[in-house]
Amino acid sequence: MTVSPFDHPLLSGLLGDEEAARHFSLEADIAAMLAFERALAEAEAERGVIPRDAEAAIVKALASFRPDTGKLRAGVARDGVVVPELVRQVRAAVGDAHGDKVHFGATSQDVIDTSLVLRLKSVVEHLGLLLTETILRLVSLEERFGGRALTGMTRMQAALTITVADRVNAWRAPLQRHQARLSEQSARLLVVQFGGAAGTLEKLGGNGPDVRAALAAKLGLADAPQWHSQRDALADFAGWLSLVTGSLAKFGQDIALMAMTGTDIALAGGGGSSAMPHKQNPVKAEALVALARFNATQLSGMHQALVHEQERSGAAWTLEWLLLPQMVVATAAALRLAAELAGQIESLGH
Amino acid sequence: MTVSPFDHPLLSGLLGDEEAARHFSLEADIAAMLAFERALAEAEAERGVIPRDAEAAIVKALASFRPDTGKLRAGVARDGVVVPELVRQVRAAVGDAHGDKVHFGATSQDVIDTSLVLRLKSVVEHLGLLLTETILRLVSLEERFGGRALTGMTRMQAALTITVADRVNAWRAPLQRHQARLSEQSARLLVVQFGGAAGTLEKLGGNGPDVRAALAAKLGLADAPQWHSQRDALADFAGWLSLVTGSLAKFGQDIALMAMTGTDIALAGGGGSSAMPHKQNPVKAEALVALARFNATQLSGMHQALVHEQERSGAAWTLEWLLLPQMVVATAAALRLAAELAGQIESLGH
Amino acid sequence: MTVSPFDHPLLSGLLGDEEAARHFSLEADIAAMLAFERALAEAEAERGVIPRDAEAAIVKALASFRPDTGKLRAGVARDGVVVPELVRQVRAAVGDAHGDKVHFGATSQDVIDTSLVLRLKSVVEHLGLLLTETILRLVSLEERFGGRALTGMTRMQAALTITVADRVNAWRAPLQRHQARLSEQSARLLVVQFGGAAGTLEKLGGNGPDVRAALAAKLGLADAPQWHSQRDALADFAGWLSLVTGSLAKFGQDIALMAMTGTDIALAGGGGSSAMPHKQNPVKAEALVALARFNATQLSGMHQALVHEQERSGAAWTLEWLLLPQMVVATAAALRLAAELAGQIESLGH
Amino acid sequence: MTVSPFDHPLLSGLLGDEEAARHFSLEADIAAMLAFERALAEAEAERGVIPRDAEAAIVKALASFRPDTGKLRAGVARDGVVVPELVRQVRAAVGDAHGDKVHFGATSQDVIDTSLVLRLKSVVEHLGLLLTETILRLVSLEERFGGRALTGMTRMQAALTITVADRVNAWRAPLQRHQARLSEQSARLLVVQFGGAAGTLEKLGGNGPDVRAALAAKLGLADAPQWHSQRDALADFAGWLSLVTGSLAKFGQDIALMAMTGTDIALAGGGGSSAMPHKQNPVKAEALVALARFNATQLSGMHQALVHEQERSGAAWTLEWLLLPQMVVATAAALRLAAELAGQIESLGH
Repeated sequence: MTVSPFDHPLLSGLLGDEEAARHFSLEADIAAMLAFERALAEAEAERGVIPRDAEAAIVKALASFRPDTGKLRAGVARDGVVVPELVRQVRAAVGDAHGDKVHFGATSQDVIDTSLVLRLKSVVEHLGLLLTETILRLVSLEERFGGRALTGMTRMQAALTITVADRVNAWRAPLQRHQARLSEQSARLLVVQFGGAAGTLEKLGGNGPDVRAALAAKLGLADAPQWHSQRDALADFAGWLSLVTGSLAKFGQDIALMAMTGTDIALAGGGGSSAMPHKQNPVKAEALVALARFNATQLSGMHQALVHEQERSGAAWTLEWLLLPQMVVATAAALRLAAELAGQIESLGH
Repeated sequence: MTVSPFDHPLLSGLLGDEEAARHFSLEADIAAMLAFERALAEAEAERGVIPRDAEAAIVKALASFRPDTGKLRAGVARDGVVVPELVRQVRAAVGDAHGDKVHFGATSQDVIDTSLVLRLKSVVEHLGLLLTETILRLVSLEERFGGRALTGMTRMQAALTITVADRVNAWRAPLQRHQARLSEQSARLLVVQFGGAAGTLEKLGGNGPDVRAALAAKLGLADAPQWHSQRDALADFAGWLSLVTGSLAKFGQDIALMAMTGTDIALAGGGGSSAMPHKQNPVKAEALVALARFNATQLSGMHQALVHEQERSGAAWTLEWLLLPQMVVATAAALRLAAELAGQIESLGH
Repeated sequence: MTVSPFDHPLLSGLLGDEEAARHFSLEADIAAMLAFERALAEAEAERGVIPRDAEAAIVKALASFRPDTGKLRAGVARDGVVVPELVRQVRAAVGDAHGDKVHFGATSQDVIDTSLVLRLKSVVEHLGLLLTETILRLVSLEERFGGRALTGMTRMQAALTITVADRVNAWRAPLQRHQARLSEQSARLLVVQFGGAAGTLEKLGGNGPDVRAALAAKLGLADAPQWHSQRDALADFAGWLSLVTGSLAKFGQDIALMAMTGTDIALAGGGGSSAMPHKQNPVKAEALVALARFNATQLSGMHQALVHEQERSGAAWTLEWLLLPQMVVATAAALRLAAELAGQIESLGH
Repeated sequence: MTVSPFDHPLLSGLLGDEEAARHFSLEADIAAMLAFERALAEAEAERGVIPRDAEAAIVKALASFRPDTGKLRAGVARDGVVVPELVRQVRAAVGDAHGDKVHFGATSQDVIDTSLVLRLKSVVEHLGLLLTETILRLVSLEERFGGRALTGMTRMQAALTITVADRVNAWRAPLQRHQARLSEQSARLLVVQFGGAAGTLEKLGGNGPDVRAALAAKLGLADAPQWHSQRDALADFAGWLSLVTGSLAKFGQDIALMAMTGTDIALAGGGGSSAMPHKQNPVKAEALVALARFNATQLSGMHQALVHEQERSGAAWTLEWLLLPQMVVATAAALRLAAELAGQIESLGH
């Protein structure tokens, strides 16, 4: 293992998701931060907050800007955030004449939180597609085997005979509710953050709300007053991620239990063993349980981070960085694994 | 302390909420379980599943039924759930002629989960009122002091001067979003559970869905197919509870920090010290932080309980019982404390 | 359910432990707090810090003291701790002549933390006995069935045949390590807390350490400098509790899985079902899993409480009260259930 | 951010630790796994379990073996563990004559768990050194400023004047207890895992315990019976990691609060802001709080993983991989940051 299995060259093949992970790469983060700075310059120029000349110089410089990542790393170690050093480099690229118009009226948190939300927008789309795919796979199981009998099990004891459709429905129905929840949440989550040093956009005079609205529009996000110390949308989204993996783990656990007794299921393509080559381990089913317990664990920390003191808490904010990206990738991986596992089911019921 | 401060004769005065706790008393639980059995008899008689005579005998017996709680306690220790023994007692009260029509087609989980949901309906109303009250108190603070200056603090350092309204808004806006969330959630949460032994209502023949709909209507709940192994609505509600306490803890932490420096706030009625009578400890503010960290902790367990195997998991279900009621009371207590704390603020800003 | 199942008249029959819970009753807490005040008066009189007359008056008054619990409840709601009001009542009982010598040089946290440690001393003895009993039951299983064959299961798939002794050893060996751990921990845990208002025993002049040592000796605790803001011994003990329940849950889970397939085990006295009287649910095995996941959940909060700022954190301290007593009772209940479950096993292996 | 800040090219400069992370790299893991296979061949040849020729061929092949990591990644995705594919590659490198003597009598878990323990041995040494360094820095603070006055703060309110030594002692004393705890734990943690397919070393006949002892000796680990389904030593070590970060976070939180009021401390080299260049943010102090809350969060999952069913739980085992390495690196980073932060303190007290 490496520090995180989601970044590990081997383990990420099982536990990771390349598309989801890509949104948390250095490249994606910097691209999103630069998109913020560009859109900000454009919005501010439109409202006359900065000159059109400055906007042009900033847009031009950003188009070819390549950061010095060694210095960015040192900047994070010193400042706790990458933005002061990144802005310094961008200003140097823009040059003396207009450099001070880069990042005008903004603060580090505006850049970092908006960069996160921009990437979460792509994440939400990706997870939505994976969720739909998993639901379709379960629908297909129901279509193929729904009418067959299956031994209903309550408290780990054989109860009455139910149908395969009854069991599959308990896997599918929560996922459909998660679709509805994601739709409700997205309106609160995919919102620009722009507040300036202490949330008041004090450098923009009366133009603050207009610039913010234009910034949001350019970035494809919803507009709302700054929320830098109000982290409920992120914690709520983390809850959604853990709801998804929790529901998928019920599916995984059920499959593993059926595979254990060997009744009511035929499963193709389990994992091998170094000591017992004949075994067919239900690797994906187990991974679903592990990923759900992982997300349920992380969720607690995301809610601890709600205690975000004053106008900006370095401690609570940093804690989110340690938790949320991994929850996203765990969820994407679980959706992928669940769809694959559904595809491995050759027979259900009797 | 006693085992749980929420049940403790002294500590519940600070950390508890009588109204919320009342919904989790033995009396409230039994009353709700008996309401289920009564409504079930009525619904089944209406559809001809049981005779009208049986219904009348059940309704009459339930009206004066008093359980033998000693035997119920022994029943829980033996069966893991109270219902088998409770049904045995009710059947004895109804008598031989109609006793077998009590609880007809139902299972323990139908009774226990529906009893919980019935009480959560009252809880949701209670929390909704408390939430509105807290919001009003914060609105009042903004009206009284909103235009005054306050030292904005970022990363625990003085930043720029903001207004009191800016700070109060960061306390209030999340609570208003929580109102919207509660409204969205309630439709998924306040739903009858009725599935019978393994979820198929097999004893009711084709009348299952009709009886369930009538049962739901009589109990004032929404109707939906059984969800006994799909616990997402409960985990999601737990997340809502923790979102609320997390937002309130930000308020509490901010107040405690302002009280620490003694600038920008005048606070009446802090707590006394046994060693230093002059001190005014911000007890309610601290309690808000403790309750939020408590709920954030519990939430993890509610999501672990999503891994609810097969048609009924004794382990996962019992885990919910250990967590959710305390989260409800913690949230009610936090809302009460936050409203009281807002009322103690005599001045904000400078 | 009531707010906490550990306090619930019905559920505590399964999930609770009367002896462990007794140590967290109001009566036990007040008795321990009064024992602290008595021992303190004696220790201070011996060193000449308070007059012998005052000691005699305090000891006499405490012998018949009965608190006004209504006022104590109001005191907690106001002060966040019970001690200021309790000391006020004790001083009134002692009378004007010597009342000011009650609690001399002490602070609330000295009383509450030492009261907790005093009761944890009894808890440690109780848990130690339960742990030994459970180990003996497992040894007995090994003696009776150890040589028989059992299907070894890896990754929920049949692997090789092992012996019953192999499986039982995996249940027993961790418990024996927990005995060693408890012994190591106890020396750090069962320590008096006495520091005065800010930890410096400033009112006792040079007599502080001597009085503290005498106080510890009278209470049967080890002596050490004040640790009021250093909560590592409590968090470490919480970890031990969760290690114990985690190991027991592996036993419970294994039993439930064997009972599910019905091979390799014969189990007497499972729980009944309201819908399927023939079923024998492995209730105690499931409860072991629930209690372990509960403790694993709570443990996170006990470690959050290590961030105990300055000389006393009301928030972090209160958080401990919400978590630790329930962890203790959960552990005692799990040990009791595991011993009972071992006793229900009529046959293992084949 | 990337998926994990501990692996992120920028954030790891603040939140990571290169030396600790190195032990969880792919290279370190594979090197440790190959060391296991080599030591196993040597131990088995010494006891006559495999021929000396086979040992020589294995040792020779391993000396120049380079894995095909693409195939290893595919192997993990298929088998859930890397070992089946790794062993296949090693056997191919050894050749037909002796390939079947590679990994003889071992199973995947033997390799992976022993590889982990081997690297934890280096981790324990590294953390021990960092812990000593941090303690020395705190001792130095006490020597320089211990006798000065400092405003004692209880419940976030000014209490009595204490000395700087009183405050520093509350930071240092827990760390010294953690040294004692680590020493106690290490004997249980740094133990070889060798059990074969189902823990019985059935392929080694009567030579199992001898081979295991020789294997342990060659690897510099303690010898003990297989513990593959007994995860208490790992969960206990995780608890130790979280105790360390929790104690360091109290230091960090205290520093941040002193820096906030600006009294009783002079701190050099805080972090900069993109909006307010004059600010000196206590970045390292905040990071200590974030890392402690992170570890307290993860700890819950490590205890959930104690419910390790049967002879091997893929789900519980995988969950550990997702949690423990990050806890180690968080702890190393916190120790490094705490030592640096202590070095930034130019003055304490008044």
